[in-house]
Amino acid sequence: MNTEAIFHRPVNQFAYSYDKDSIHLQLQTKKDDIKEIILLFGDPYHFEGDNWHYNQSNMEKTGSDSLYDYWRIKVKPDYKRLRYGFQCRDTKGDMLIITERGYFKTMPQDIGDFFCFPYLHEVDIFQAPDWVKDTVWYQIFPDRFANGDPSLNPQGTLPWGSEYPTPTNFFGGDFQGVINHLDYLVELGINGIYFTPIFNAYSNHKYDTIDYFEIDPQFGDKETFRKLVKECHSRGIKVMLDAVFNHSGYYFEPFQDVLRNQEKSRYIDWFYLWEFPVQTKGYPNYDTFGFVASMPKLNTTNPETKKYLLDVARYWVEEFDIDGWRLDVANEIDHVFWRDFRKVVKEIKPSTFILGEIWHDSMKWLQGDQFDAVMNYPFTNGAVEYFAANNMNSDTFADSITKVLHMYPKNVNEVAFNLLDSHDTARILTMADGNIERIKLLYLFQLSFIGSPCIYYGDEVGLSGGEDPGCRKCMEWDQSKQDLALFDFIKQLLQMRKEIPAFGNQADFKFLKVEENVIAYQKESNEGKLVFILNNSGEKQTFELKALENKKVKELFSGREINFSNKAEVHLEQYGYRCYQIPQ
Amino acid sequence: MNTEAIFHRPVNQFAYSYDKDSIHLQLQTKKDDIKEIILLFGDPYHFEGDNWHYNQSNMEKTGSDSLYDYWRIKVKPDYKRLRYGFQCRDTKGDMLIITERGYFKTMPQDIGDFFCFPYLHEVDIFQAPDWVKDTVWYQIFPDRFANGDPSLNPQGTLPWGSEYPTPTNFFGGDFQGVINHLDYLVELGINGIYFTPIFNAYSNHKYDTIDYFEIDPQFGDKETFRKLVKECHSRGIKVMLDAVFNHSGYYFEPFQDVLRNQEKSRYIDWFYLWEFPVQTKGYPNYDTFGFVASMPKLNTTNPETKKYLLDVARYWVEEFDIDGWRLDVANEIDHVFWRDFRKVVKEIKPSTFILGEIWHDSMKWLQGDQFDAVMNYPFTNGAVEYFAANNMNSDTFADSITKVLHMYPKNVNEVAFNLLDSHDTARILTMADGNIERIKLLYLFQLSFIGSPCIYYGDEVGLSGGEDPGCRKCMEWDQSKQDLALFDFIKQLLQMRKEIPAFGNQADFKFLKVEENVIAYQKESNEGKLVFILNNSGEKQTFELKALENKKVKELFSGREINFSNKAEVHLEQYGYRCYQIPQ
Repeated sequence: MNTEAIFHRPVNQFAYSYDKDSIHLQLQTKKDDIKEIILLFGDPYHFEGDNWHYNQSNMEKTGSDSLYDYWRIKVKPDYKRLRYGFQCRDTKGDMLIITERGYFKTMPQDIGDFFCFPYLHEVDIFQAPDWVKDTVWYQIFPDRFANGDPSLNPQGTLPWGSEYPTPTNFFGGDFQGVINHLDYLVELGINGIYFTPIFNAYSNHKYDTIDYFEIDPQFGDKETFRKLVKECHSRGIKVMLDAVFNHSGYYFEPFQDVLRNQEKSRYIDWFYLWEFPVQTKGYPNYDTFGFVASMPKLNTTNPETKKYLLDVARYWVEEFDIDGWRLDVANEIDHVFWRDFRKVVKEIKPSTFILGEIWHDSMKWLQGDQFDAVMNYPFTNGAVEYFAANNMNSDTFADSITKVLHMYPKNVNEVAFNLLDSHDTARILTMADGNIERIKLLYLFQLSFIGSPCIYYGDEVGLSGGEDPGCRKCMEWDQSKQDLALFDFIKQLLQMRKEIPAFGNQADFKFLKVEENVIAYQKESNEGKLVFILNNSGEKQTFELKALENKKVKELFSGREINFSNKAEVHLEQYGYRCYQIPQ
Repeated sequence: MNTEAIFHRPVNQFAYSYDKDSIHLQLQTKKDDIKEIILLFGDPYHFEGDNWHYNQSNMEKTGSDSLYDYWRIKVKPDYKRLRYGFQCRDTKGDMLIITERGYFKTMPQDIGDFFCFPYLHEVDIFQAPDWVKDTVWYQIFPDRFANGDPSLNPQGTLPWGSEYPTPTNFFGGDFQGVINHLDYLVELGINGIYFTPIFNAYSNHKYDTIDYFEIDPQFGDKETFRKLVKECHSRGIKVMLDAVFNHSGYYFEPFQDVLRNQEKSRYIDWFYLWEFPVQTKGYPNYDTFGFVASMPKLNTTNPETKKYLLDVARYWVEEFDIDGWRLDVANEIDHVFWRDFRKVVKEIKPSTFILGEIWHDSMKWLQGDQFDAVMNYPFTNGAVEYFAANNMNSDTFADSITKVLHMYPKNVNEVAFNLLDSHDTARILTMADGNIERIKLLYLFQLSFIGSPCIYYGDEVGLSGGEDPGCRKCMEWDQSKQDLALFDFIKQLLQMRKEIPAFGNQADFKFLKVEENVIAYQKESNEGKLVFILNNSGEKQTFELKALENKKVKELFSGREINFSNKAEVHLEQYGYRCYQIPQ
């Protein structure tokens, strides 16, 4: 048995409470090494004479990648307390019991040897707002979505879409523009909007805030914003704003005060200044975002600064009833700040969603005390490299997705913000070199996966663009230039996600078969299974799948009923796809 | 390369800030598989043209057990931010770079592939009070330490030591008794006392609280306690009390109110009641500690209960200037409670020590937001089974200690509460079947190890006793019955720990050689090394050690200077031990 490859520790995704009755346990073992795992578990105080009373239950292998098999089980302890061990039998027939104190060949007599999940407290459960599981997001970069009120156009505003976006040009997008197109978004089928920053700022992207309590005048005023939120809510659309708390802009008054008064400024503790005079030319002599002098890092551990920012967080929820905060550069701010942020925001409105921008492993922020979700770039990376960029083979893709699913608890994965691209990346169509068939597969995968997916404005009608600033083009409103077929395809997928429980978060995901060009995966809910087959190649493929043998199924895109024989063979056109519904 | 055995994730002991300038990184690999690891690291925003600017530094192998090699490194990032990967070369010469996105044969071009430690915030560092590192504890079970004021004796008090302890008898130990013997403790060399509960309670052990705001009258009153704390402080001794917040006693007024008024009681939310009438005979129909009906579990998520308990925590610190809280059954209380507990206690007196009673892996509580330390039973288990009980071979012992050292961050290990026994276990002398030589080795190991050691009252003079209640005998004050040689030995060790930096926490621990009967380990500080050799057998042993070859050393117990030749051979008597000092 490859004991050195076995990993379990009662932290993170390996042991957590999923709901008030259930504990999930996860173990990883070397790929293809272990044949069967039985969980041995019981209440730590339940003895019959000298003997501990314990139960046994088989664990399920929920996925494999190139290195590991992953095993999971759900347990409902009788008295909320749990001690447990894993009885592993390998492919050679050897058996070992895995405990906190190592490996045993026979049942350990000391209950202290076992792993401990001391007590299931409801208040400790990772709990994101319920609505997020059923939310499909749409990301809007306000200057570029729609110009509904030309009277607000900032000086030098260019005619809509007349020029290629640059780091400094403006196109006059505003709130009225968004309001004008809300029904378009309803038709598409999304029910949440994530707005990149809307507060008073200097640049077109607004990530360099001047005043966190004011709407940028190019977008409208507080009344327009209030109207926007109301119009969204009346259509069942949630509103999430961007909190840029890691750094301010150059023209933020406290920073201006520092520049004017230097060491005499009353704001010197608001930033991380290394020396005086503060130097904004060349390499800044203070902490910044990256090395960008115009984005001085805010000292979120300074009580006054912290209070100011928490007041901002409270204000927009309390006064404007927004539904979520997306947190810019969230992992460069201290954990103490985020724990207090969560308290403040959840106290006013418990259903507020807290989404951190973190591109890396985010376990530290997803333990229930800080964020509800992060922008799930590990998902993004696999999906986009495989389907869009065609830079990854099927095995590596399946590995990356299996890893994502097993790196966090299930309740974390159910609300992960699964984006494909954003204002910070090239657009997917450009990454796919214009191949719309690959983009369709990408959407099919994203929208049938666990999590809370996000569509970047314009992608749904075939907007293209490279890395920033290319990805920030004006939305295309001329229907003759829109890819309406793509729009309809996404619309169809979103309807399926809404109507079929196994399409969305109420189902477990598992790869069934991974070939060089074709992948098959399953979503299983209480009501039945969906089997997806995707041909990620420009050639026709014939694909056999055991899971379909002798099954009577319905193919959802064609509506055809099919009776598979004892050899289930599927003939796929280039970039072809199927979704078979298998009732319970 | 055994990639499946390699583990790193930027959480817990694998990546943490040690102080305001330093980040520690840890990696584990299959034992004897990897020859060299070079850390590749740099600032994520530091580019030279298109190329990321990174540094290289060798990692140190800090320990090995039967499965893994452990590697650590300390890094000081220039701008508090860090991206990093591990370049591993195995014994066959193969090279791989380990990143968050898997294994690469050549340097990855995308900085997003690397592991991320986003920003070093001082406020996020795990920080226990400084004094704990230099503290040696002495645990007192008040009814059994010393009777200094017979007028307080509860009814039925037995003459001191006249009978074997039972779950229900009393011997009249009290605060005045402790005060009378403080100079004895000073002579021994301890500088912290942990008192098991002192609040008004029913039993002799006082873990069934009646009133958390009152001293149990058998021990004295608040004035005696105030005097006790002052007398301790004037001798440089810290005082830690036991907070039994998981459950109350049967006679706790809110529980009595529940019993009287049942569903009409205003205290029904203070407990976890399943139904009415509340049933205290046989199996209780409410949550309890274990299944003990007289210890109803407190609902620490009920705001009123929580406030009451936090007021208790505040009161004894604020009014009596105590220095620490030991938290009974700490892991069965919710994390939210403990986060708030920390805030309350640290706000009044930042130097207050918070010690949780957790017998298992305690990583979840040791992330800086909850406890400063836990009772380090994983250490206890190895040390006691090896030296005292003689139930463990040298390899397993060395494995268990190496694991303990690598399961937590270094700053956690430096304040770990390293006990050998307690009121909850058999006494070490009894576990050693009376063999005082083995006990001496056990103390030598405990008191030369990393952490904050604890001596259970009476052990220092050879008190014996089996599991509870046997381990709760009266302290032996008759010098003719005390093992004065053991007392003097411990006193000598405590002096060495105080005077020689490498003896205590200012040094790194590492096993040098582990044989069937003899172990050797090293403590290395800035001022030099100590090499310990312990013969854990009843036979004479000859032991060779490379680390001593050609070294001029001083043996600390004999005071002898020794010049080892190019063959360093040590002749050890049965249960013999040496401590060689090698200057820098």
